[in-house]
Amino acid sequence: KMLQRVLCTVLFMGALPSLAEVSQGHISVVLLGATGDLAKKYLWQGLFQLYMDQVSSGHSFTFHGAALTALEPGQRLMFDVLKKLACPPDESPNRCAVLKDQFLKLSQYHQLKTTENYTVLNREIETLLRQEGLKEAGRIFYFSVPPFAYTEIARHINSSCRPPPGAWLRVVLEKPFGHDLESAQQLAAELTSFFKEEEMYRVDHYLGKQAVAHILPFRDQNRQFLDPIWNRHHVERVEIVLKETVDAKGRTSFYEQYGVIRDVLQNHLTEALMFLTMELPANMSRAEEVLQSKLQAFQSLRGLEKNSAVLGQYQAYASQVQEELQKAQDYISTTPTFAGVLIHSDSLRWEGVPFLLTSGKALDERVGYVRVLFKNRAYCTQSETLRDAEHSQCKAKQIIFYIGHGALNTPAVLVSRNLFRPVMPESSWREAVGQSDLHVFGQPLSDYYVYSPVKERDAYSVLISNIYHARKDFFITTENLLASWGFWTPLLDSISHQPLRLYPGGVENQHLLDFEMVSGEVAFTLAEPVGLLNPNRLMPSDYRTIQSKFRQSPLVSAWSEELISQMASDIEKTASRTVAQSGQFHLALSGGSSPAVLFQRLARHHYAFPWKHTHIWLVDERCVPLTDTESNFFSLHNHLLQNVRVPYFNVHPMPVHLNQRLCVEEDRGTELYAKEIMALVANASFDLVLLGVGTDGHTASLFPRSETGLEGAQTVVLTESPVKPHQRMSLSLPLINKAKQVFVLVLGKGKHDITTLLSRVGHEPRKWPISGVSPSSGQLVWYVDYEALLG
Amino acid sequence: KMLQRVLCTVLFMGALPSLAEVSQGHISVVLLGATGDLAKKYLWQGLFQLYMDQVSSGHSFTFHGAALTALEPGQRLMFDVLKKLACPPDESPNRCAVLKDQFLKLSQYHQLKTTENYTVLNREIETLLRQEGLKEAGRIFYFSVPPFAYTEIARHINSSCRPPPGAWLRVVLEKPFGHDLESAQQLAAELTSFFKEEEMYRVDHYLGKQAVAHILPFRDQNRQFLDPIWNRHHVERVEIVLKETVDAKGRTSFYEQYGVIRDVLQNHLTEALMFLTMELPANMSRAEEVLQSKLQAFQSLRGLEKNSAVLGQYQAYASQVQEELQKAQDYISTTPTFAGVLIHSDSLRWEGVPFLLTSGKALDERVGYVRVLFKNRAYCTQSETLRDAEHSQCKAKQIIFYIGHGALNTPAVLVSRNLFRPVMPESSWREAVGQSDLHVFGQPLSDYYVYSPVKERDAYSVLISNIYHARKDFFITTENLLASWGFWTPLLDSISHQPLRLYPGGVENQHLLDFEMVSGEVAFTLAEPVGLLNPNRLMPSDYRTIQSKFRQSPLVSAWSEELISQMASDIEKTASRTVAQSGQFHLALSGGSSPAVLFQRLARHHYAFPWKHTHIWLVDERCVPLTDTESNFFSLHNHLLQNVRVPYFNVHPMPVHLNQRLCVEEDRGTELYAKEIMALVANASFDLVLLGVGTDGHTASLFPRSETGLEGAQTVVLTESPVKPHQRMSLSLPLINKAKQVFVLVLGKGKHDITTLLSRVGHEPRKWPISGVSPSSGQLVWYVDYEALLG
Repeated sequence: KMLQRVLCTVLFMGALPSLAEVSQGHISVVLLGATGDLAKKYLWQGLFQLYMDQVSSGHSFTFHGAALTALEPGQRLMFDVLKKLACPPDESPNRCAVLKDQFLKLSQYHQLKTTENYTVLNREIETLLRQEGLKEAGRIFYFSVPPFAYTEIARHINSSCRPPPGAWLRVVLEKPFGHDLESAQQLAAELTSFFKEEEMYRVDHYLGKQAVAHILPFRDQNRQFLDPIWNRHHVERVEIVLKETVDAKGRTSFYEQYGVIRDVLQNHLTEALMFLTMELPANMSRAEEVLQSKLQAFQSLRGLEKNSAVLGQYQAYASQVQEELQKAQDYISTTPTFAGVLIHSDSLRWEGVPFLLTSGKALDERVGYVRVLFKNRAYCTQSETLRDAEHSQCKAKQIIFYIGHGALNTPAVLVSRNLFRPVMPESSWREAVGQSDLHVFGQPLSDYYVYSPVKERDAYSVLISNIYHARKDFFITTENLLASWGFWTPLLDSISHQPLRLYPGGVENQHLLDFEMVSGEVAFTLAEPVGLLNPNRLMPSDYRTIQSKFRQSPLVSAWSEELISQMASDIEKTASRTVAQSGQFHLALSGGSSPAVLFQRLARHHYAFPWKHTHIWLVDERCVPLTDTESNFFSLHNHLLQNVRVPYFNVHPMPVHLNQRLCVEEDRGTELYAKEIMALVANASFDLVLLGVGTDGHTASLFPRSETGLEGAQTVVLTESPVKPHQRMSLSLPLINKAKQVFVLVLGKGKHDITTLLSRVGHEPRKWPISGVSPSSGQLVWYVDYEALLG
Repeated sequence: KMLQRVLCTVLFMGALPSLAEVSQGHISVVLLGATGDLAKKYLWQGLFQLYMDQVSSGHSFTFHGAALTALEPGQRLMFDVLKKLACPPDESPNRCAVLKDQFLKLSQYHQLKTTENYTVLNREIETLLRQEGLKEAGRIFYFSVPPFAYTEIARHINSSCRPPPGAWLRVVLEKPFGHDLESAQQLAAELTSFFKEEEMYRVDHYLGKQAVAHILPFRDQNRQFLDPIWNRHHVERVEIVLKETVDAKGRTSFYEQYGVIRDVLQNHLTEALMFLTMELPANMSRAEEVLQSKLQAFQSLRGLEKNSAVLGQYQAYASQVQEELQKAQDYISTTPTFAGVLIHSDSLRWEGVPFLLTSGKALDERVGYVRVLFKNRAYCTQSETLRDAEHSQCKAKQIIFYIGHGALNTPAVLVSRNLFRPVMPESSWREAVGQSDLHVFGQPLSDYYVYSPVKERDAYSVLISNIYHARKDFFITTENLLASWGFWTPLLDSISHQPLRLYPGGVENQHLLDFEMVSGEVAFTLAEPVGLLNPNRLMPSDYRTIQSKFRQSPLVSAWSEELISQMASDIEKTASRTVAQSGQFHLALSGGSSPAVLFQRLARHHYAFPWKHTHIWLVDERCVPLTDTESNFFSLHNHLLQNVRVPYFNVHPMPVHLNQRLCVEEDRGTELYAKEIMALVANASFDLVLLGVGTDGHTASLFPRSETGLEGAQTVVLTESPVKPHQRMSLSLPLINKAKQVFVLVLGKGKHDITTLLSRVGHEPRKWPISGVSPSSGQLVWYVDYEALLG
């Protein structure tokens, strides 16, 4: 009855739906948490906007606010909110007033607490529909409640409030969706037990920001211009930035658990990143294809390491936490409030392009943007003063999706005039004309084509409309969510005890939070000013590398990371010196996990290494095919060889795999390798041999009491390991001892006992093969980290 | 007597040399071409400056002007020049007046034409020295004469005018030193028959420009700052630029023979390039070490190709040439008056950094500079408006050696303040202070530390002083000269019929001469406006690639360069498609010179090639060690593998070298290779086989009437070549015919006969093995260039 009245009013106003159209069916929208902050601020307004937009769509609507509050006070609270709903400036005030009146009449409060409550709601909806003779199109449940309440509500909906067959169910979920991969998996598993994947709409409200939402359409509509340049050959870097001026005051109980990476980077900025890097599907209108393509983009991201991020915390944060969470005065929070993260994609399109994600609280300005800066490949013969924005290729070329606030104070899309005039949908984006003195991103605004939305709409209006249209590509699927947590969790784990740079906040931060990329890592540009240093934080890097003696030979010791750096530098120095003298450098390398870190360091930080003149030999090898993941050579290839340019001829894997079989004596692999060494290495004296030590004192693949390799004339030997794979090939001790230099690398607490033992025993190679390493005319250097040395 | 008088005067003035100091000996300076333009404008003034600087050095001097003109008019002409010698502003007028008077007295004119003349000069010097009781220190002969006169003068000096043993000879030569490698070699050979290398001082007056001359000292004195950043990891690009506003009017008879590359790039700009790229020797004061290091820098330059340069000619040039050289109205000059050249060094330090050398006449401004632009690796969290020059890493970082003219109108050294405050020798460079509104290289002058010379000195004064000091590193040695010509000559040859972009001259050039780098090549940014096009110039690239049939298979034909480009693109497309389908791409490649060009093209222009998933096989191999320059694999490695990233495991050289011997049957290399193929390539069906054709119709290493490989079950065979090295290993015809695609590449006039023959004959593999190529279920495509196809 009520509904018929509404329809009459609408028809009377000439404002639309014929009865035929109403046959699209009825939609019930249930807003859980109807009187909460988010609902007050955005959601009711978004639902009202949906109603205004879709009143003539052929669907009829009812809106059900729900909360735990009892009916009477709940009703009052909710209608206080609804009364304040605003009419958008682009709507005629008359029409809006009528529609608002209808909207209020269509909206109802419910207490939803018990199973019974849900059953009642379900019955009311059914009754209404029967009375009005309407078929049910579907139900939307919007969860604007804390995540701990999700499971119970989900259970109730699933058991008592599902629409009948033929009508759809859409549940809308708000973040946080877990705080790491494991918790997200758990939450996802629970939800999956109640809802089908296509029923769940996880909101990342950034996807409703007009500039972010336009990234994919922009790429699609401008394919003709972007196809040749949207790749690593043309893009210099990408910045995805959300800067805030506010701090976490009043919200530290939430913030202290999450921090800036979980709060902003893992979700908002990562989603924007995906929109930039994913391959465009052929058909953009198919949400499934879009989501699939986005998921593939996640697969191409290179794993983050500790040094992929710089982290900060505004100075007042600690005292805010102490106060709000009643912590002791010496409580130290390790929660970052600022982060800059360098991300690489290893896709063919993006390999090598730096993507910088940055966000922080208490910064100098509030602004959000996605900036794609293109390489400058031009030389402009004409002098600077004569260059014009449209034609000069020497002006910066960039495309900016300006999310809002900042100097422009509106969402916008900016394209440098020397790039192209973009195709923009005229119905939703209009070109900004007229003069402006603004400079943005290093250029006057007049250097860009500038577009802003015809109607500015808040993110929630956009998203609610997309829920209505079942545009799942505007939401976070379970796979997408887990892919994102899978990407971020290792970084979150590795930085949990990272030092944070303290910053005063606002403009006083000056250059304190500027950071630089060096060799795939990031670091703050300025050294930390002493005044800001927290005296309690003594970090590993405060210890200096120490140099002394171990077993009568030089000892270098430090924390493992520094030790590896030092060793890599020392190897490079040796290599350069040797190549300068003799034209080549013969380097014999061991397998294992410690060398892997060293190899990565060499590949990523030592670009001046004379690889072209370096010969790579193996100290030992497991008798497995070279492409087996257990092979020392495979690991060497993975961590080093594929990233540097050693000539093919200079790479000498051990011939453990001959005639399709492994380490069979009569295939004479050891002889073959010995001959190769004799032929290429003068006097069979390697320039540098890198060794490790096992907890049993073995080195290379020379194990205690080995029958071969500890003495005698044989230079390459087959040996037996006590652990699998048992069969090994190894350089012999006598050959190792002919080397000009031998470096022994010992890392980790697990090596403390053997290290202590070795510091006391003499030359007893049969018991501890490593004790037999003693270059006859070369030098031995021990690199032992603090954990191995000091326990 | 005259000399004693001079000495007395000098002594009397208290202005110096004690007699003990004069014992350094006497220097005779002979200026050949004493009344020519260069002498008038610079050289006499330079000699006078030398005298002023060195009058108290302990050396005594006489100056001998010489020319072909008879004594009497010659004397008059010369003294007209000498009278006008100027006193430098930093010299006291009194002292200068006295010294000028002395200088005039010490200067004398000689007609030097015949052997007799030189003998007389020699006798006069000897007599003078005997009379004055002075020992001879040395003689300087300054050749300010056209190069065609060099040989005769050199012969005369060598035979009749050499100083006695114990005294040195220095002959100073002015460019041009040839116009290509061959002519330069010839000229050098002639000179070498008269002079020792250490006696020759070839002038490049750019090396006397104060900013250029300071590049090496700057690098040396600022090693602490530059060591970490003077390399490819930090340098974004380098620009070496000499722009002129004047055109060639009045000098076209010279210019028409040389053009801008020979006139400016081959010498001046290349020398500046070397100062930037060479490794600093340990001891900068040893000219020999400096020269050696410079020579090494030449060795690292990557060869130039046609598309390494963009070329232009100002519009009025043609008519100036027609007029001045009495050419017909339809005479077309192919002489470039503008060039932009992209140069790469393959040294470890500079690999990948673009060096742009640019020069031209009739441009919009007169300016010269060497600009090193560093990469911006920073993200500045602070907003733009709050950045300061000294601390923000987001402002451009550059070092500029400003040669002169332009906005600054003085030589200068500029270093961005966010880089470092450079160490500068206070005696010769002073910091410019005070305000300036100038913007240079995109930044306000206040963003730089700016230094200018304490005394501005012209290049010839600097160089004459360096001749006196025997600083050979300021001059061009024969090796250096030939290295430079060796580098430039291939480009000069390949562009001799390149189209030139016509430009109107001056500011009207607008963006017409702006150019861009794309994949290691350069091209003008704007399309050539139709109005300027010369309709007479039909260039090879105007022919389009044609597609038709050859021996019933698809034929692609074009000029060789385009054909190679087309083939490389086709291979990449096949590779990408195959990898997308099956995850890997099995490519079998032939040896020879045509594929080498293809390999280079693939390595340099196809960055998106899926190398990581490509397996490289050999079609055939010569029975030589893999590291032998004759080895197909060696060439493949050189041209392709060392420049791309194919995993080690995916590279499959043929096992021609087993057990230290070559292609011995019982080593069963063919079996080994066949097994490897079977193990990795599905159905032993390669995805793509690249073949060539010999003039005898052989393909792979399958020669006419071969007993193996043309038929039968064997997939890999040993064969005999009619040419050395005779022994070969080859895939068999049946195996090749199992491939999914076969591309046959045929290039050059030499292949015209066999191409014609093949177009007529049928399937006769015993006579012409290539005619047996006919993939049983794959596709065969012929790539034949116009020369092979059309003769």
